[in-house]
Amino acid sequence: MDRGTMRAAVRRGTQLIVTDVPDVRPEQGQVVARTLACGICGSDLHAVHHLEHGVEIGRRSGAPDTIDPAQDLVLGHEFCAEILDHGPGTDKRLKPGTRVVSTPFAFGPGGPELIGFSTRFSGALAERVALTEALLLPVPNGLPSEIAALTEPLAVGTHAVAVANPGSRSVAMVIGCGPIGLAVIVALKRRGIGPVIAADFSPARRALAEQMGAHIVVDPATASAHNHWEVLDVPATLASLGHAQLQGRSVRDAVVFECVGVPGMLQNLLENAPPLSHIVVVGACMEDDRIVPVIGINKQMRFSFVWAYSPDEFADTLHALGEGLIDGSAFLTDRVSLAETAAAFDRLAAPGDQVKIVVEPWR
Amino acid sequence: MDRGTMRAAVRRGTQLIVTDVPDVRPEQGQVVARTLACGICGSDLHAVHHLEHGVEIGRRSGAPDTIDPAQDLVLGHEFCAEILDHGPGTDKRLKPGTRVVSTPFAFGPGGPELIGFSTRFSGALAERVALTEALLLPVPNGLPSEIAALTEPLAVGTHAVAVANPGSRSVAMVIGCGPIGLAVIVALKRRGIGPVIAADFSPARRALAEQMGAHIVVDPATASAHNHWEVLDVPATLASLGHAQLQGRSVRDAVVFECVGVPGMLQNLLENAPPLSHIVVVGACMEDDRIVPVIGINKQMRFSFVWAYSPDEFADTLHALGEGLIDGSAFLTDRVSLAETAAAFDRLAAPGDQVKIVVEPWR
Repeated sequence: MDRGTMRAAVRRGTQLIVTDVPDVRPEQGQVVARTLACGICGSDLHAVHHLEHGVEIGRRSGAPDTIDPAQDLVLGHEFCAEILDHGPGTDKRLKPGTRVVSTPFAFGPGGPELIGFSTRFSGALAERVALTEALLLPVPNGLPSEIAALTEPLAVGTHAVAVANPGSRSVAMVIGCGPIGLAVIVALKRRGIGPVIAADFSPARRALAEQMGAHIVVDPATASAHNHWEVLDVPATLASLGHAQLQGRSVRDAVVFECVGVPGMLQNLLENAPPLSHIVVVGACMEDDRIVPVIGINKQMRFSFVWAYSPDEFADTLHALGEGLIDGSAFLTDRVSLAETAAAFDRLAAPGDQVKIVVEPWR
Repeated sequence: MDRGTMRAAVRRGTQLIVTDVPDVRPEQGQVVARTLACGICGSDLHAVHHLEHGVEIGRRSGAPDTIDPAQDLVLGHEFCAEILDHGPGTDKRLKPGTRVVSTPFAFGPGGPELIGFSTRFSGALAERVALTEALLLPVPNGLPSEIAALTEPLAVGTHAVAVANPGSRSVAMVIGCGPIGLAVIVALKRRGIGPVIAADFSPARRALAEQMGAHIVVDPATASAHNHWEVLDVPATLASLGHAQLQGRSVRDAVVFECVGVPGMLQNLLENAPPLSHIVVVGACMEDDRIVPVIGINKQMRFSFVWAYSPDEFADTLHALGEGLIDGSAFLTDRVSLAETAAAFDRLAAPGDQVKIVVEPWR
């Protein structure tokens, strides 16, 4: 029987195109779902142009190969979808029509694979997506689908703050207020950590950071001599803050969230963050980077490299959205159709005020 | 009144010479002590040839300048000494003749300085040294002076393991079995952590590692294809170990102590240490190093850069030596006179079997 086709945003060569691809076919334990909303992530942008490099980095990270860059790759791992049908080996605990989100994992012959970063398991920037039934969480409280789709990036912040585990006396600094930095700010606010100092070049993102709960926002262009992240002058930034602004906290208990992910950031923080700082590396620098390790020793610093979230952190983040404890709508800077996906990628790649664009393939 | 002179091992230019220098003069709160034994540290070796670089790194680490490389520098911070006389502002709690050790700190006008890495406070590779009375700990139980002098390097291991905080299910790997690696092994043994896997190119150091408590020793030259630390193949090493050798532990809870301190080690561990590893960086790489941060993210690794020890950890280490809980004598590969210091530096700089050489200036 013919599988039929569906419209999808596909990485082919080094381009993102919207085209017809074979329709999804559920594997053992999967459901077929209709994509209601799917966010575009920085890693999607990177994949379009640098997929081979990403695959090589994955290999050097010891991960099994799940992507063949020579084949079409359907991106999309930040999704909300509606169950259409149950595949083989499912227990049908959620009825067709149920709106769901989930962690973007599927189970292939070689182990877990990431939906949207797998040649086998296509992503949700498509009309339909096959999802792992056991991981599905129903969307609570009539939460709009485009907000529910934010669970995934927001859960990254939940996890980063859990790893940071700041104390009640900690000063938190968030470097970079893109989706990841904002997700960290949201998670810090939920835990009552303060003061939170947030830095970004974009006035719109700084305004969002304040709206999300940052106590102090900093423009690196004025806090340092040069308009580059690499020279963000954290001591000057801190020195410019009064005791009252720091709420009497000592910068000796600093947690710094690196949410930029470009070369030079780690050495910047080694040199400029306070001694004893805990640097939580959330921004993924895919390129070679240069550090001077002995400075980390001299300053007794810690670096935690964080990735993704636990199932509990994901569920907790969804719950917080459902209860209105997080204002997801502020993140959402645009909603577009599948046909507008490539243009949305370009807008996100350009420096500016965009945070999260969600694609609605049903439009 | 003339200060008189004393013999000392001095860094002058890029040479280590033994010469007459002005005798020590105690500052407020200091005692004058006769050096009984002083170990040579890797950082002493580095200081001879690369002091300007070390000063620049210190500045970039935010530390106050305490060294003028244009002046003579009397090295030595791993000491045991005998109190000769009390300076101004002391409370004379320990009598002259008392043998003491201490953390190598002195208090200058700009804050704490390191004895032996300070133009103001000369080190203990000299006949006499001025020490901070408040920090002095009497040598317990007739512990030989050359063993008491090992308190300092052994305390570095105590601290590194405290920061690592391995669980009872942890597998510990110690990369490099020089004095620091061996100190880590000693501290792991004291905490009952096992299995401890230790790697070093030197057969003598591997034998020492076993004697100190390593359960498994590995020759990187056979565990990997090339005779360089940068390519130590940790997965191959682990794969070569049977389940019984790993005592049923999972390498998913791995703590890796980096005790080599050359460029390439951190990227080696990023690529080769198991996912979720906690890398404790004890070896001080003074040079620029290259890493790919996203591999740390993919593998969710942690890096703790550690330096020195707390006063409690120092006192605990001395206590353990005094109680015979640590066999310090195994560390001590030679004892030399002050006149032999430069030759001892050369022997330590060459690859080989030396671990710790202690200078006895009274010889």
